[in-house]
Amino acid sequence: MARIVMKFGGTSVAGTERIRRVANIVRAQAAAGNEVAVVVSAMAGETDRLVNFCREANPLYDPAEYDVVVSSGEQVTAGLLALTLQAMGCKARSWLGWQLPVNTFSAHANARVDSIDAEKLISSMQAGEIAVIPGFQGVSEDGRITTMGRGGSDTSAVAIAAAVKADRCDIYTDVDGVYTTDPRIVARARKQKYVTYEEMLELASVGAKVLQTRSVSLAMKRGVRVQVLSSFVDDGAPPADTLPGTMIVSEEEMDAILENSDVERQTVTGIAHDKNEARVVLTRVPDRPGAVAEIFLPLGEAGINVDMIIQNVGRDKGETDVTFTVPQSDLARAQALLEDKKDKIGFNRIITDSKVAKVSVVGMGMKSHAGVAATMFKALADRGINVQAISTSEIKVSVLIDEDETELAVRVLHTAYGLDAEAPAG
Amino acid sequence: MARIVMKFGGTSVAGTERIRRVANIVRAQAAAGNEVAVVVSAMAGETDRLVNFCREANPLYDPAEYDVVVSSGEQVTAGLLALTLQAMGCKARSWLGWQLPVNTFSAHANARVDSIDAEKLISSMQAGEIAVIPGFQGVSEDGRITTMGRGGSDTSAVAIAAAVKADRCDIYTDVDGVYTTDPRIVARARKQKYVTYEEMLELASVGAKVLQTRSVSLAMKRGVRVQVLSSFVDDGAPPADTLPGTMIVSEEEMDAILENSDVERQTVTGIAHDKNEARVVLTRVPDRPGAVAEIFLPLGEAGINVDMIIQNVGRDKGETDVTFTVPQSDLARAQALLEDKKDKIGFNRIITDSKVAKVSVVGMGMKSHAGVAATMFKALADRGINVQAISTSEIKVSVLIDEDETELAVRVLHTAYGLDAEAPAG
Repeated sequence: MARIVMKFGGTSVAGTERIRRVANIVRAQAAAGNEVAVVVSAMAGETDRLVNFCREANPLYDPAEYDVVVSSGEQVTAGLLALTLQAMGCKARSWLGWQLPVNTFSAHANARVDSIDAEKLISSMQAGEIAVIPGFQGVSEDGRITTMGRGGSDTSAVAIAAAVKADRCDIYTDVDGVYTTDPRIVARARKQKYVTYEEMLELASVGAKVLQTRSVSLAMKRGVRVQVLSSFVDDGAPPADTLPGTMIVSEEEMDAILENSDVERQTVTGIAHDKNEARVVLTRVPDRPGAVAEIFLPLGEAGINVDMIIQNVGRDKGETDVTFTVPQSDLARAQALLEDKKDKIGFNRIITDSKVAKVSVVGMGMKSHAGVAATMFKALADRGINVQAISTSEIKVSVLIDEDETELAVRVLHTAYGLDAEAPAG
Repeated sequence: MARIVMKFGGTSVAGTERIRRVANIVRAQAAAGNEVAVVVSAMAGETDRLVNFCREANPLYDPAEYDVVVSSGEQVTAGLLALTLQAMGCKARSWLGWQLPVNTFSAHANARVDSIDAEKLISSMQAGEIAVIPGFQGVSEDGRITTMGRGGSDTSAVAIAAAVKADRCDIYTDVDGVYTTDPRIVARARKQKYVTYEEMLELASVGAKVLQTRSVSLAMKRGVRVQVLSSFVDDGAPPADTLPGTMIVSEEEMDAILENSDVERQTVTGIAHDKNEARVVLTRVPDRPGAVAEIFLPLGEAGINVDMIIQNVGRDKGETDVTFTVPQSDLARAQALLEDKKDKIGFNRIITDSKVAKVSVVGMGMKSHAGVAATMFKALADRGINVQAISTSEIKVSVLIDEDETELAVRVLHTAYGLDAEAPAG
């Protein structure tokens, strides 16, 4: 018997027929004797419909009223799932954000969970009632509805799991786990039984769109074991005691798991790619103290996230080229900001390129292994792939390459780090 | 300057374009210096969509979860109207049922208002903020969302008006007031400037579908002046200081109005019709004490509303025919109940007829005038219309006639009581 929080996304609850499938999965967990809380998103398409209404009503919308409108999508799904569970003979009730309450800081439309009062929730679960909770929503200090930004339901689920001290938080998505890389690119990609929070964070932030980054950070901070698994299994109800997905665990738990098995720690756990970066080159920047700060300070103030930065060796004495990447969606804004400061910074011209991709290798094992980056550069060089920029963290090495070579690079690296499965996935 | 509660129904807020028209009407009232609260329904069609979801999820739905789902429709409209008003430069915010709160007795899906805490609402209105309130919804003693049954937004508006001590409650509908009869039947029907609560109650309950009956009862009990007017006026914003609709007032206010004008009190204010009745005849019921009670007790216990009752003179000694009417929607249930008790009651057979209509003349002036019923019967008899049953109240006379003769009867009576306008309406 365990206490479990389950979370289902918009595709899994799109329509009453799919909600019935979800209810079957939930019922199986409850029937196995577990205490169950379920967090649900709005039906797929519903949030977009509501956001469009808000834009039509007021292009510069007040986020407090926007929250009133868009939070209704999850409210509807929560009520419908409770009704469906009742129709199957389960005890179930919905708990809206303001009813628990899920207290958030009142940054409307992008709220963060402050605290969750889980007392009523826990009593209800202990009494055998399935708690159905709309994700994405909370309540501000002054009693108004807040929402947590797109994809916030993952974060809701993790926060609920932390509050009720759940044994695990199962996030049901349209993929059945975390793979060594995108199986659509590499047929021999392998589903992983375990990854660490740190690895998952790096994988999520570089484009493996399985979990929202904020939810992984929160899980790490609060020590919530998160499982990623698919809601689209054939019988609608996986066996309650197996772990069919990928479990995201702490480094300590991972160490214990590895100690009790014959499996050696892998140097590299996964390979991610991200085509949403753009490269910016400022040519002939004066090579003097403070010049680089004049470039990046205004970008930082404008909330533009700069990732890779390279300062080339100057071709001419006293001048240098500065290369960096920004999200494609911020490129136009970054360019305008820099043109504005052209005289102050003193560069010659801006060259931009959106046809780039970032490919990253991620793994806790990297900490204790030398040569990971060397393997990467050699494997790419052997296939003639030119590396335009590099960035590294403790457990990640990323390179910027030509967008057209993304899939080739991912395949080459997947093989180079020995990640290929014996038989193709799927 | 006045304090006004305005209410807009589903047709008036169906889509962001119509919400903009509503916002224009609201803004005109606020711009005229009034303190304004607005109560809104869900967009036309939205409640049906949500109710269907509930039925699909669970045909025997839990009304508490049903309320969670269907109340979202009004929540969306309230947020959108607040956003639209803000886009026009007005200060506005939404107040959900649980935020005020609108406390109700927790008969889910059919809740009644217990009390409304109007303190925050009044401060906000006094500060020049337009309050936007979703109709139809409240909160139960145990903090769950309740709804007030279909059409409950009229009742919400009147309850809010009573709580904030509003000078009047303007109910915007798709008709521009209360007419002497249905203008689709009688071209010379006249819009009335004033009707009393009592008259409106009789008109509403006999089929003049302008206002929900419960809202009129509540207005009468709490002394709320209610105005019925159309939201579909050409310029979207009627002059703020005229009363373009029909004002529903107390008998005392009506007396004062009549005293200060040359107009004489009309005997009859309106003529209503209702085609949703069915006639039931039980033949050869034993003419003994208690026999009639055995017919009507079980119907009452089953919640079937019996309206007109006639006991014919018995053809044979010791036997009589009993005729009465029930709503068509309850006819099958009534018939089954009576067949069940056939032996106990001792009747011969049941004859039913759905092709009947009830036509009623209503008016406060009736109290002080004799001969109203006589005028009615003579006018109908002159045109060969057969009266099958009669019922009366202090301010109403109703007759049951053949359904095919409904329109003819309404026209004949409209003329007979001198209600025809000099020129056709519209």
